[in-house]
Amino acid sequence: MHIDHIGIAVKDLETAIETYEKLLNTPCYKKEVVESQKVETAFLQTGQSKVELLGATDPDSVITKYIEKKGEGLHHVAFEVEDIHAEIERLKSEGFTLLSDAPKPGADKKQIVFLHPKSSNGVLVELCQTVK
Amino acid sequence: MHIDHIGIAVKDLETAIETYEKLLNTPCYKKEVVESQKVETAFLQTGQSKVELLGATDPDSVITKYIEKKGEGLHHVAFEVEDIHAEIERLKSEGFTLLSDAPKPGADKKQIVFLHPKSSNGVLVELCQTVK
Repeated sequence: MHIDHIGIAVKDLETAIETYEKLLNTPCYKKEVVESQKVETAFLQTGQSKVELLGATDPDSVITKYIEKKGEGLHHVAFEVEDIHAEIERLKSEGFTLLSDAPKPGADKKQIVFLHPKSSNGVLVELCQTVK
Repeated sequence: MHIDHIGIAVKDLETAIETYEKLLNTPCYKKEVVESQKVETAFLQTGQSKVELLGATDPDSVITKYIEKKGEGLHHVAFEVEDIHAEIERLKSEGFTLLSDAPKPGADKKQIVFLHPKSSNGVLVELCQTVK
């Protein structure tokens, strides 16, 4: 298991891309819209992990609601796992609450699932597995 | 540059260690008190990066204040750099605001400096360099 990415909720994706390209001294290498979540994403590589900038494509997006409530900032952390189904079962048996019983398609060709933040000290934790 | 660690503010460090040992399926390998910041820290390794749990050792701690204001959760992200002095100069010249002009000693034998969250979309960014 390793940190696949950290997700950062931003108001304006293009401005945030410029900021993080300067900060991390590396270009954004991919942008992708996730229609089902009404978000647009932009990725920057930093070592083994990525920074994923998250902007809303609709006032009804989870990102709009998040920013209204908490402001811009760190939104979630995602851990890459080898077998997401096995991890879901392991974490359930350890007493963690998951937001869905089965993984769903996410950005970056991954299957993803979220843990409820109440299970993990207020942190929205994503598990992801790259689809080969 | 890579993600050295993500910092998570927690109310009770011992309980949080148990939670994250289960979540990440790996033991906490180190605990350390940072007197100057009135925090106690616990580290778990996950790939190239660490999860740093942050608890207050005093009601006057930055962590107590953070949790009162925002609740438990993701507190900061730290990027390891090869030359922290050069990075400070580079980021200043790019227009970023730093919380101090020179690096200070942090946990885990590092020299650290923070960027003001207003510079980075609400994210408290730490730069760190391992002292050899």
